[in-house]
Amino acid sequence: SYPQIDGIPQLKKEASYFIKNFLDLDVDGENCLPTVGSMQGAFSSFLICSRVSNAKDTILFIDPCFPVHKYQNKVLGINVESFDIYDFRGEKLRDKLESIFATGRIHSMLYSNPNNPSWVCLTNEELKIIGELATKYDVIVLEDLAYFGMDFRKDYSHPGEAPYQPSVGKYTDNYALLISSAKAFSYAGERVAILAISDKLAKRHFPDLLTHFNSDTFRNAIVYGALHPLSSGTSHSAQYALAAMFKAVNDGTYNYRDDVIEYGRKARIMKEAFLANGFVITYDKDLDKDIADGFYFTYGYPGFTGSDLVEEMLLYGISAISLYTCGSTREGIRACTSLITRDEIAELAKRLALFHEDHPIK
Amino acid sequence: SYPQIDGIPQLKKEASYFIKNFLDLDVDGENCLPTVGSMQGAFSSFLICSRVSNAKDTILFIDPCFPVHKYQNKVLGINVESFDIYDFRGEKLRDKLESIFATGRIHSMLYSNPNNPSWVCLTNEELKIIGELATKYDVIVLEDLAYFGMDFRKDYSHPGEAPYQPSVGKYTDNYALLISSAKAFSYAGERVAILAISDKLAKRHFPDLLTHFNSDTFRNAIVYGALHPLSSGTSHSAQYALAAMFKAVNDGTYNYRDDVIEYGRKARIMKEAFLANGFVITYDKDLDKDIADGFYFTYGYPGFTGSDLVEEMLLYGISAISLYTCGSTREGIRACTSLITRDEIAELAKRLALFHEDHPIK
Repeated sequence: SYPQIDGIPQLKKEASYFIKNFLDLDVDGENCLPTVGSMQGAFSSFLICSRVSNAKDTILFIDPCFPVHKYQNKVLGINVESFDIYDFRGEKLRDKLESIFATGRIHSMLYSNPNNPSWVCLTNEELKIIGELATKYDVIVLEDLAYFGMDFRKDYSHPGEAPYQPSVGKYTDNYALLISSAKAFSYAGERVAILAISDKLAKRHFPDLLTHFNSDTFRNAIVYGALHPLSSGTSHSAQYALAAMFKAVNDGTYNYRDDVIEYGRKARIMKEAFLANGFVITYDKDLDKDIADGFYFTYGYPGFTGSDLVEEMLLYGISAISLYTCGSTREGIRACTSLITRDEIAELAKRLALFHEDHPIK
Repeated sequence: SYPQIDGIPQLKKEASYFIKNFLDLDVDGENCLPTVGSMQGAFSSFLICSRVSNAKDTILFIDPCFPVHKYQNKVLGINVESFDIYDFRGEKLRDKLESIFATGRIHSMLYSNPNNPSWVCLTNEELKIIGELATKYDVIVLEDLAYFGMDFRKDYSHPGEAPYQPSVGKYTDNYALLISSAKAFSYAGERVAILAISDKLAKRHFPDLLTHFNSDTFRNAIVYGALHPLSSGTSHSAQYALAAMFKAVNDGTYNYRDDVIEYGRKARIMKEAFLANGFVITYDKDLDKDIADGFYFTYGYPGFTGSDLVEEMLLYGISAISLYTCGSTREGIRACTSLITRDEIAELAKRLALFHEDHPIK
């Protein structure tokens, strides 16, 4: 028979525990919904958020971002606005956001934290600013936690113990969380994730939703207006598997961080090789702190635009994507630490040295 | 890692063989795309078909139909037009379709064959009319084969042997097939199906698609403009499972019909009990032939509207859905043969007799 459209009970329960244990937030299992990957969680959220108010027609992205998120909005015909976080860290974020929210056009916003591609990690101070303004201007915050707990400068991996993965959920009720299983649990192939909607947002009525959907509460519009028509739910067996993984980390019998921290270790060694050969880290700081070592990092080379650098590095057998495609205003490239093995890093360093030799910095 | 977005090679290959073996159509494996159930196949098709031409804004449904298909279009903001097949069987279908297509507003049409809820099976004569007019007016035909091979009056289950499951693909190049695994293979829980696009349609360029998508060929718009942003593909393991099921039926080592023909047997016994107690079959004929016994049938009772009948029968512990919700102009109810066991049919007959006794027909 068909999978339960809003999720099997044990997955909903363990997802709720997971959110309590690792984010220190209370979200009822009722509002923890399995999706066909976070991709469907995001698509569903865009579909519903864009129709909560006939007076609002635009979503805001914090750049740089995962380009497919913007593409999902293009496909749906939703207006997108964005700005690059680089120049608006800390208290500067307040004025920037306020100037955009004050137009009255923004129904929702999305950022990923840690950020793909820049690996910027928003601080609690910044999340507080986002949360306060989201409440003030009634904007729904979609927090993409694709790289859950992977700011390895801190250890967020012990259930029920501080420190917790930072979240805007501490500072507003107007939020939904995208919790992917792809990276933290290395479970991309089975397409299962959790969309967790704040309890208050979940039950809120938005009469304008009735233009396109049969339900006017946010949760029911997501379930019956998005998840059901989009795909009739997600794989039953993957739901059981994710429930078991959540249970293991909730019970403390499995520490997911142990299996992903290698990305951070490789990032450190890779960055050393880049820096030793004249490259710079493009997104280099979280306020006063050096950026974390994690799944991605960004780099540039003096005198090169990002796209020129992508092309030129291909000649040295090094491929990556330009930050330009991610909406960044900075000239640089994204490196992904999962695509290279430890053994290959020495070869990478050799090629970087060759590149450096061929392109002396003036 | 993530599943291959357009499907694993063995699934694409076996799906192509399946279509050759059981529909006698040639569709390249390249154009056989796994989806998160036929629900995603339909949603993706609606999303793309509605944007192939800026001059066309409406989809046509043949009623009665699966109500969620219309709802998917409501969610997407696509205009829907429909008519009830009951009064337009055979050659009458031609004028009806032509009058609608001639408006120039129709980009695509969808019907299910066998039909949910009425179990009407369009004949080859009718499919030929649809195909010819689809070509003439450049309308894309979405053929929902959710109940593949389940018109049990014929045996379509032997690979490479006539008779074949009838399909519009014999009569036009403007088609895409929705091949579900939920009913014929009883595999609803894992959410995997095939969207098979005619080779000619797949590679056709529709410049207007570029308004919303990055590709202007139909296939690539489906893959990169729908399947990728909707969910990044469907479960890897379910793709392997479906490939194995297709292979077994292609090789003739498994006959799927043997496992579903019980629905038809139950339908026959159930219908006898209804007819013996004053009920009538609402959609009763395919032209001159009695309707097949299969997954659904429809019934009414003299003097009752469909919705009154649904309510009244609940008092006898019999639940079903009104045909009204399926866009039907006829007064009746849909019965589903999968929701009752053989043992329960005697009890059903008893309740029908009680209903008949309490509601004498004048």
